[in-house]
Amino acid sequence: MDTFILIINLVGTVAFAVSGALTGLRKNMDVFGVCILGLTTAVGGGVIRDVILGLTPPATFRDPTCAALALVTSAIIFLPQIRRLLMHNPDRYNLLMLWMDSLGLGAFSVVGVQIAYQHVTSPTLFLLVFVGVVTGVGGGVLRDLMACDMPYIFVRHVYATASLAGALTCALLWYPAGSVAAMLAGIALVVVIRCLSAHFRWNLPRAKEL
Amino acid sequence: MDTFILIINLVGTVAFAVSGALTGLRKNMDVFGVCILGLTTAVGGGVIRDVILGLTPPATFRDPTCAALALVTSAIIFLPQIRRLLMHNPDRYNLLMLWMDSLGLGAFSVVGVQIAYQHVTSPTLFLLVFVGVVTGVGGGVLRDLMACDMPYIFVRHVYATASLAGALTCALLWYPAGSVAAMLAGIALVVVIRCLSAHFRWNLPRAKEL
Amino acid sequence: MDTFILIINLVGTVAFAVSGALTGLRKNMDVFGVCILGLTTAVGGGVIRDVILGLTPPATFRDPTCAALALVTSAIIFLPQIRRLLMHNPDRYNLLMLWMDSLGLGAFSVVGVQIAYQHVTSPTLFLLVFVGVVTGVGGGVLRDLMACDMPYIFVRHVYATASLAGALTCALLWYPAGSVAAMLAGIALVVVIRCLSAHFRWNLPRAKEL
Repeated sequence: MDTFILIINLVGTVAFAVSGALTGLRKNMDVFGVCILGLTTAVGGGVIRDVILGLTPPATFRDPTCAALALVTSAIIFLPQIRRLLMHNPDRYNLLMLWMDSLGLGAFSVVGVQIAYQHVTSPTLFLLVFVGVVTGVGGGVLRDLMACDMPYIFVRHVYATASLAGALTCALLWYPAGSVAAMLAGIALVVVIRCLSAHFRWNLPRAKEL
Repeated sequence: MDTFILIINLVGTVAFAVSGALTGLRKNMDVFGVCILGLTTAVGGGVIRDVILGLTPPATFRDPTCAALALVTSAIIFLPQIRRLLMHNPDRYNLLMLWMDSLGLGAFSVVGVQIAYQHVTSPTLFLLVFVGVVTGVGGGVLRDLMACDMPYIFVRHVYATASLAGALTCALLWYPAGSVAAMLAGIALVVVIRCLSAHFRWNLPRAKEL
Repeated sequence: MDTFILIINLVGTVAFAVSGALTGLRKNMDVFGVCILGLTTAVGGGVIRDVILGLTPPATFRDPTCAALALVTSAIIFLPQIRRLLMHNPDRYNLLMLWMDSLGLGAFSVVGVQIAYQHVTSPTLFLLVFVGVVTGVGGGVLRDLMACDMPYIFVRHVYATASLAGALTCALLWYPAGSVAAMLAGIALVVVIRCLSAHFRWNLPRAKEL
C-alpha cells in the first residue's frame, strides 16, 4: 500500500514537472526558470494540501525525493534534443501537455483524498473531495499564475470537473473497492474525461454568447 | 450571536461570489469558470485567515454551506436572463460589482476580527485589524490574480483603507458597544467609504504626476 | 544574537519594502498601492515561511514592527523628491532595485534558515535550505504576481540560485563558523552573485535558441 501511494506520487510529480517545464519552454525561459516552474508545479499542490490540513512542515520539505525528481525531469525536458522535438511540432507539444497535465491532475486528486483519509478524523465526503480537488488543481494553478497565463482551471472547462469526478469516485470506492482500486479508478476517470473533452472539443456556453 | 455571525458570513459569501462571477462574465468564461471564480472569491479570504491562525482544516473544508451557496450564487449570475441584464449595461454591471465587492469586503473584514477575538488568546489590536484586513481583501486579491487583472487593492485606492477602517472600528467597538453593533458599524463604514469614494471619484497623486 | 537577528530582519524588511514600492512606482500606482505592495513584499516571505513551519499566527501578525517599518519605507519612496530622483533616471532606478532586491533576498534567505534551525527538531540540510529559499524568494514572487509581472525568479536566472547558494552556505557554516558569521556569509554571497550576474550580463540558453 505505501509503495503504491509512493508510485502514484512519483507519477504525479513527473507528470506535473513535465507540464511546468513545457510551460516554461513556451514562455522562452532559461534552464533555471524551466526547472523552478517544473518544481513549483510538481510540489505546489501538495504544499497547499499539507498547509490546509495543518501537516507542517509539508511532506515536500521533509523528504527531498519529489523535489529532486521534479528538478531532474524539468532539466531533461530542457535538453536540446527534447526541446527541438517538442517546440518544432505544436501538435506533439499540445498532446504531451494534455497527457501530462491530466495524469498529474488525476494522481494528485486521489493522493489528496488519501492524505485526507489518513490524517483527518472522521472526514466528511465533502472534505475528502474538496481536499482532493485543491491538491489536484493547486500545482497547475500556481504554474499558470507564475507563467502569467489565465489558469487552465478557468479556460479548460472540464478541468476542475474532471478533478472533482476523480476525487469523488476515489472517496466513494475507498471502502467498497479498496484504496488501490479506488485510486486507480479516480486517476483513470480524470484522464478519460479530459482526453474525451479535448478530442471532441466539448464546448459550453460563454458569457458573450447570449 | 452565533446566528448573527452566520448571517454575516452568508451575506459576505453571496456578495463575493457575485463579484467573482461578474469578473468571470467579463472575462468571457464558461459556466464552470464563472462558478469556480465565484467560489474562490467567496471562500478564499476565509481559507487564508484560517491557515494564518492555524485553524486547520479551514472552516470552509469542514462545512459545505458556504461553498454550496457560492456555487449556486455564481450559477444564478450565469443564467442567460441575468447575464443579458448585466452585460448589456455597463453602468448596471459596475454598480452591482461595486456594491457586492464592498459588501463582501466589509462582511469578511469584521468576520476576520471576530474569528481572531474568538481563537487568539489576548490578541493585540494590531493582530485583530491585520487578520480582519487579510480576511477582507484575500478573496478579492485571489479573484483578480486568477482573472489576470491587476488586483483592486492596488488600483482602487480606498480598498485596503476601507477594510482597515472597518476592521479597526469593529475591533475598538467590540467591548464598549457589543460585538453585534461593532460588526454592523464596521461593515457600514466599509460600504460607505467605498461608495463615497466611487461617487466622488476621489483621486490621489500617482507616481507619474510629479 | 537576538539583536543581530532583529537587525537582519529589519534590513531585509526595508530592502524588500523599497523593491516593492519601486515596482509600485513603475506601475504608476497611487500612494496606497505603493505602500501595500511594499508591505506585501516585505512581510510576504515571512508569512509563507511561518505558515509552512506551522508557526501560527505568523510573527508579522504578532509584532507590528516590521509591518510599520515597511509602510514608512514605502511612503518615503513615494515622496515627490525621491520619486523624481528615481523615475527620471532609469539607471538609478534599476541599480537601486537590484541592490534592494538582492539585499532582501539575502537577508530573508538566511533568516529562513535561522527560523528553521530554531523551530524544527533535527532539521535536514534539505529542509533548512528549502525553507531559506522559500522565505527569500516568497516576498519577491508575491510582489511580481500582484504587479502582474512575470516573477523575477523566472526571468533573472540567478535569482533562486543565488538564494540557494546563500541558504546552503549559511546552513553549512552554522555550527563550524557560528550563526552570525554564517548569516553574514550567506547574505554576502547572495548579493555578490546577483551583482556579478547583472554586471556581466550572464546569459543562459533559452528555449528558442536551439
